[in-house]
Amino acid sequence: MAKDKVVLAYSGGLDTSVILKWLQLKGYDVVAYVADLGQLPDVEAIREKAMQSGAVDFYALDLQEEFVKDFVYPAVKFNALYEGRYYLGTSLARPIITKGMVEVAHKTGAKFLAHGATGKGNDQVRFELSAASLDPALKTIVPWRIPEFFEKIKGRKEAMDFAHEHGIPVKATVQQPWSSDDNLLHISFEAGVLEDPALRPPKEMFEYTTDPKDAPDEAEIIELEFSKGEAVKLNGESLSPANMLRALNKLGGKHGVGRVDMVESRYVGMKSRGVYETPGGTILYAAHRDLEALTLDGGTINLKETLMPRFATQVYNGYWYCPEMDAMMALLEKTQEFVSGKVSLELYKGNITCIGRESQYSLYDEKVVSMEDDEGAYDQTDAAGFIKLHALPLKAHAKRAKK
Amino acid sequence: MAKDKVVLAYSGGLDTSVILKWLQLKGYDVVAYVADLGQLPDVEAIREKAMQSGAVDFYALDLQEEFVKDFVYPAVKFNALYEGRYYLGTSLARPIITKGMVEVAHKTGAKFLAHGATGKGNDQVRFELSAASLDPALKTIVPWRIPEFFEKIKGRKEAMDFAHEHGIPVKATVQQPWSSDDNLLHISFEAGVLEDPALRPPKEMFEYTTDPKDAPDEAEIIELEFSKGEAVKLNGESLSPANMLRALNKLGGKHGVGRVDMVESRYVGMKSRGVYETPGGTILYAAHRDLEALTLDGGTINLKETLMPRFATQVYNGYWYCPEMDAMMALLEKTQEFVSGKVSLELYKGNITCIGRESQYSLYDEKVVSMEDDEGAYDQTDAAGFIKLHALPLKAHAKRAKK
Amino acid sequence: MAKDKVVLAYSGGLDTSVILKWLQLKGYDVVAYVADLGQLPDVEAIREKAMQSGAVDFYALDLQEEFVKDFVYPAVKFNALYEGRYYLGTSLARPIITKGMVEVAHKTGAKFLAHGATGKGNDQVRFELSAASLDPALKTIVPWRIPEFFEKIKGRKEAMDFAHEHGIPVKATVQQPWSSDDNLLHISFEAGVLEDPALRPPKEMFEYTTDPKDAPDEAEIIELEFSKGEAVKLNGESLSPANMLRALNKLGGKHGVGRVDMVESRYVGMKSRGVYETPGGTILYAAHRDLEALTLDGGTINLKETLMPRFATQVYNGYWYCPEMDAMMALLEKTQEFVSGKVSLELYKGNITCIGRESQYSLYDEKVVSMEDDEGAYDQTDAAGFIKLHALPLKAHAKRAKK
Amino acid sequence: MAKDKVVLAYSGGLDTSVILKWLQLKGYDVVAYVADLGQLPDVEAIREKAMQSGAVDFYALDLQEEFVKDFVYPAVKFNALYEGRYYLGTSLARPIITKGMVEVAHKTGAKFLAHGATGKGNDQVRFELSAASLDPALKTIVPWRIPEFFEKIKGRKEAMDFAHEHGIPVKATVQQPWSSDDNLLHISFEAGVLEDPALRPPKEMFEYTTDPKDAPDEAEIIELEFSKGEAVKLNGESLSPANMLRALNKLGGKHGVGRVDMVESRYVGMKSRGVYETPGGTILYAAHRDLEALTLDGGTINLKETLMPRFATQVYNGYWYCPEMDAMMALLEKTQEFVSGKVSLELYKGNITCIGRESQYSLYDEKVVSMEDDEGAYDQTDAAGFIKLHALPLKAHAKRAKK
Repeated sequence: MAKDKVVLAYSGGLDTSVILKWLQLKGYDVVAYVADLGQLPDVEAIREKAMQSGAVDFYALDLQEEFVKDFVYPAVKFNALYEGRYYLGTSLARPIITKGMVEVAHKTGAKFLAHGATGKGNDQVRFELSAASLDPALKTIVPWRIPEFFEKIKGRKEAMDFAHEHGIPVKATVQQPWSSDDNLLHISFEAGVLEDPALRPPKEMFEYTTDPKDAPDEAEIIELEFSKGEAVKLNGESLSPANMLRALNKLGGKHGVGRVDMVESRYVGMKSRGVYETPGGTILYAAHRDLEALTLDGGTINLKETLMPRFATQVYNGYWYCPEMDAMMALLEKTQEFVSGKVSLELYKGNITCIGRESQYSLYDEKVVSMEDDEGAYDQTDAAGFIKLHALPLKAHAKRAKK
Repeated sequence: MAKDKVVLAYSGGLDTSVILKWLQLKGYDVVAYVADLGQLPDVEAIREKAMQSGAVDFYALDLQEEFVKDFVYPAVKFNALYEGRYYLGTSLARPIITKGMVEVAHKTGAKFLAHGATGKGNDQVRFELSAASLDPALKTIVPWRIPEFFEKIKGRKEAMDFAHEHGIPVKATVQQPWSSDDNLLHISFEAGVLEDPALRPPKEMFEYTTDPKDAPDEAEIIELEFSKGEAVKLNGESLSPANMLRALNKLGGKHGVGRVDMVESRYVGMKSRGVYETPGGTILYAAHRDLEALTLDGGTINLKETLMPRFATQVYNGYWYCPEMDAMMALLEKTQEFVSGKVSLELYKGNITCIGRESQYSLYDEKVVSMEDDEGAYDQTDAAGFIKLHALPLKAHAKRAKK
Repeated sequence: MAKDKVVLAYSGGLDTSVILKWLQLKGYDVVAYVADLGQLPDVEAIREKAMQSGAVDFYALDLQEEFVKDFVYPAVKFNALYEGRYYLGTSLARPIITKGMVEVAHKTGAKFLAHGATGKGNDQVRFELSAASLDPALKTIVPWRIPEFFEKIKGRKEAMDFAHEHGIPVKATVQQPWSSDDNLLHISFEAGVLEDPALRPPKEMFEYTTDPKDAPDEAEIIELEFSKGEAVKLNGESLSPANMLRALNKLGGKHGVGRVDMVESRYVGMKSRGVYETPGGTILYAAHRDLEALTLDGGTINLKETLMPRFATQVYNGYWYCPEMDAMMALLEKTQEFVSGKVSLELYKGNITCIGRESQYSLYDEKVVSMEDDEGAYDQTDAAGFIKLHALPLKAHAKRAKK
Repeated sequence: MAKDKVVLAYSGGLDTSVILKWLQLKGYDVVAYVADLGQLPDVEAIREKAMQSGAVDFYALDLQEEFVKDFVYPAVKFNALYEGRYYLGTSLARPIITKGMVEVAHKTGAKFLAHGATGKGNDQVRFELSAASLDPALKTIVPWRIPEFFEKIKGRKEAMDFAHEHGIPVKATVQQPWSSDDNLLHISFEAGVLEDPALRPPKEMFEYTTDPKDAPDEAEIIELEFSKGEAVKLNGESLSPANMLRALNKLGGKHGVGRVDMVESRYVGMKSRGVYETPGGTILYAAHRDLEALTLDGGTINLKETLMPRFATQVYNGYWYCPEMDAMMALLEKTQEFVSGKVSLELYKGNITCIGRESQYSLYDEKVVSMEDDEGAYDQTDAAGFIKLHALPLKAHAKRAKK
């Protein structure tokens, strides 16, 4: 009888290698799958390790352009920050990874998906909600929630033992006292020494950004051009979405911009502490918001701001593929119609300073705003009527409040 | 017959001195009123100038503590930013200035208020809406909206001429190529050379903050303690609200934090460009938000974030005293009940980095979040049920979407 | 020299006839324009009266289908009620009337628009904001805000005198002790005897609906079929939007449904009292909401409900044509993708009772919800995990609240 | 060794009697607890049955006044409807029942709670989230989620067998083809014949209300007086909250008002169909909203409407006791400060018609709104300025949109 086939989101690291072998031992044909969101050092090495760990097949999908274009850019357009600060680097990656995983399942005829996310984190939710939407018939296997697995593989030592026992190649690296996850948008750190939120992260932990104190003493001015809310040119040069983000990561990293250290509310009910480096993304957000200020009317800005926490929470919680998100996306795209133009920014030791902006669709009218005499674009006596009518309900309230 | 009495919001500058005299010439008894929100250099000099310009009386109210406690601190507690970036420094000042002005009117029996805000700006609205709420019977005179006045005093030259003509003392200072407004929370700049949003503000314009490039090479770590959302101690020392903000302004100013350069949507319908320095306020916001992340549950954070744009817009538009604001304030205060604790921040060349936080009311539980084995504070198999139920509507949607 | 041309929104009534003549006397060439939104008794009579009153030209546009399709249906799809009760019958009419008026202006080369709405109401705002969006170059003349006009035509008597003086034909009808406005969606009443909100409207005032007490003793069951949120069939018969609403008006009117008597907050700052009859619209709303309950997931329902008051307020205030509305419309349309199916309703003496609903896109799954044994579509032990994780932050809060 | 003690939410019905016995057999001392929210026919009979079923103790708490005052009235004040139609009758009952249950646990030293809600419904969530907040140390036992229990007691037949086997008295009533739940606010029906949402509920199912067709031919006018949003007098007579709701239930029931038949989105992910009778509650909501229209300014109405879906969803989902709800409650109470006055309503065959309203805190000003000449309370020429400034951003957008 043919074995059941499972597609495993595989990283090449110790944990998913152990899971791969464990699934094989449980009787599954395991298809190892890796999505390249910009973080992959050596696909061939990963493939090799997957096969050595017992995979029947291996798929690597290069999703970098799609990731930036269809996942990162919408977040930028919404100025989406979870709980005011988190740029959603991991949250945005999970749905596209799942999309690729489901495609591999369809291609290989697999009826199961598996991932190595733990039972305490957000990622399990993001993987499984995405999968539920993309193909509700697929079943998910989560070793970190299966007692038989997690009671055996209690920690790194047990995982190493298991690997040695089953001939899984293990790199003789020293384990970092934190865990991390990276892609083109960001690298995140959590756990280990970060678990006490009163303590500062170690200086050597950071990977994507120079410490602002070590960043160049010379500021650097860049110019970003947007079309309908999406960055299209850097210093006059057209760049694809992934190349744009790569270039901005380099610039931002060099000047020490984009570090965030925060406590956040996980969907699964607990508080956790995360540290993030999002150099290019932080530049994109700053520039985009500055351009929106010039090209969106106040009502639309307020509407977007009001919906933003809902959008960011949906993304954070794993609801990328759902009708509510589809509706907010339709709204979002409509608002970006005129968000085209250029923004100049200065990067300097952790600072991003917007220093100039222009747009053919600018709503700013120097003639109207000028305090100097103008040609009637605005009649200041109109303000009296404006204020009087807006004061009317305040006066009615004030009079009755005295009763 | 007794003359009508008017209370004029007086600054001691050229414009309000000209207005004072003009009102006197129009037959009013003018009571000059100045509110000290931390910006006053020399009350005696202002009093003298007011009397020389024709005032019948002069009132100076020291509102610094009330300003920070009852106006700035609520904005901090709401993490209130207008259009994502503006710390509302001027918006928060107008209602308390008006409150003092109405008190002076009541004390002196005046039936009229007057201010020197222009017919194109937000301040006229803020003054007059506040006055409408505080005493709907008072009438407001706004020379800058009265053709007889503004057609005569077309610019600085005409104002100077009028001053000379009527013996108003004029300082022989060179006029800055921008206009500014300051108080304990911020200094704002607009107009003049700032009117082209594509151009960078001149380096010499800034007053409250050192340019990050000129700020000390040594970072400085400070500790802020909050009680119910309000900063109460700096580096272990108890400070009154105004002294707290003054101390933070000094620290922030030294390290170059708190500059914002933005285009914004005025309530009166136009876009304008403003540049702001809010050194201490920016530190307060950063620390407060960081502490909320530790002490507020995710639901409350989301609720506050969702309402914030509404609150900030109300403040910006001048609706400080109104039933809708009262309701949001009641909500706000309730949310701050447990926002007590300490935050450590590092200041360095324009950067504010939150590096540690702690609270007796912390919702963060290291035992729960830890990836290491724990004592059952969290059972990760629960996550399966959690996800399955949340996936149910997604699956139902996915199935029917295929039809 | 050619005269300036003005397009006047003309009703054929006394007021707009007086305005027409007054504009002519002021030196304008007046183009009378009337939009048929379903309320027009006799276009020829109106044309004749317009010409007798001094018009140089007359345009009547039949906008009924467009009105229902593009203005009424979006409101239905949003379940839009202003302040919880008003079906927006007048608010929805003003933008399309203005659209027609601007088209006539373009056709005739007119540079001016004029309307007969008063200076106290919402309609002036709706007309003029719509016009500002549709063609910002057009200027608007509003006699009821021009002292020269309204000080002369103080009331009905002066209007009659003016009419007689200038040969405007006046019908010898008794004036109703209220004013009304009607179209295919509703008839509204205000002013006169309605101005005391403590008093009940007179029974004889109502025009579109039978008093529930006089409605048939036999209930009537109807079936409405929707496609993407729009009613397409009534009792199995396909009907165009305008014909659908006409048919439902007849049914609703017969059974006494759709009366609303309320106090509302006008945009211009005052409270007013309005009485409305919206028979067909009320049926549409009831059926549409019932179908949404079957076909929209809870998240989307909540999103729509949260935005609805904003949408309804924008419509009420006259912001039909603006970027914020465009964005909400894009969201709205996206949500209606699966709102197709049938609803059965019983009409009886003022009641609309939804008694059954079905859809090929139904999210309701009898197998899942059934309390009887099922085949594993839902595992109730999953609920334990679901609840435990959602309880986690509550427990964390409860523990610290005791401190 | 002392047995563990468990407090069981007991109804006296077959299901909770079986659960009581089952818990006893599992080795618990069972304290039977019943909360009187207005639905209790005979406490003594329930006590007797509990003791016969094996309870070691019995507590009956009369929570009627607290239920209406602290749970129903806040919902009325928020005009809270879940998904536009559900008056939250069951949702509001669960937290107060749990509060009593926790009190009994504290009194009796019990460390466990138990309830008879199923694993598919909302009530389990509401019970357990409330308990988590009120005493996070208490553990909950839910037989309907324990396979050992629900695999044995598969249906009514098995429950009857179990009852007979263990000497639990069983009434020889015919089981209804639906299940119901009732309290002073409403009676709800679900399951059984209601599970096909296309079919109409049987006429004989309804208990609280007369069918509108059978209701009196004579309309009845009532007058409700409110103080700070709470109904305090009916037709001039002061009534306690519970007595008020009881009296309105009688009136509403007589005239056939308050039936709702709807599909709704359960928190646990599925759609269900419920039918509700809420006669008195529906009257309260109608009158309260009508009074708010007179006494709240438009901004506050909009704020409340915008938050309402969030509040209703929190209540529906079981989050009564949580910081987010506390914050919304503080806001709510603040808004009701001036919601005092009288509303007249006519009840007739299912209709509630608001026919008059008055308040000493009314914001309605006949002088301002009147179309007749007034004494300058409102200057209609002010409207021009009001509109022009609001049109400014629309014009700016229109001009650039043409590019």
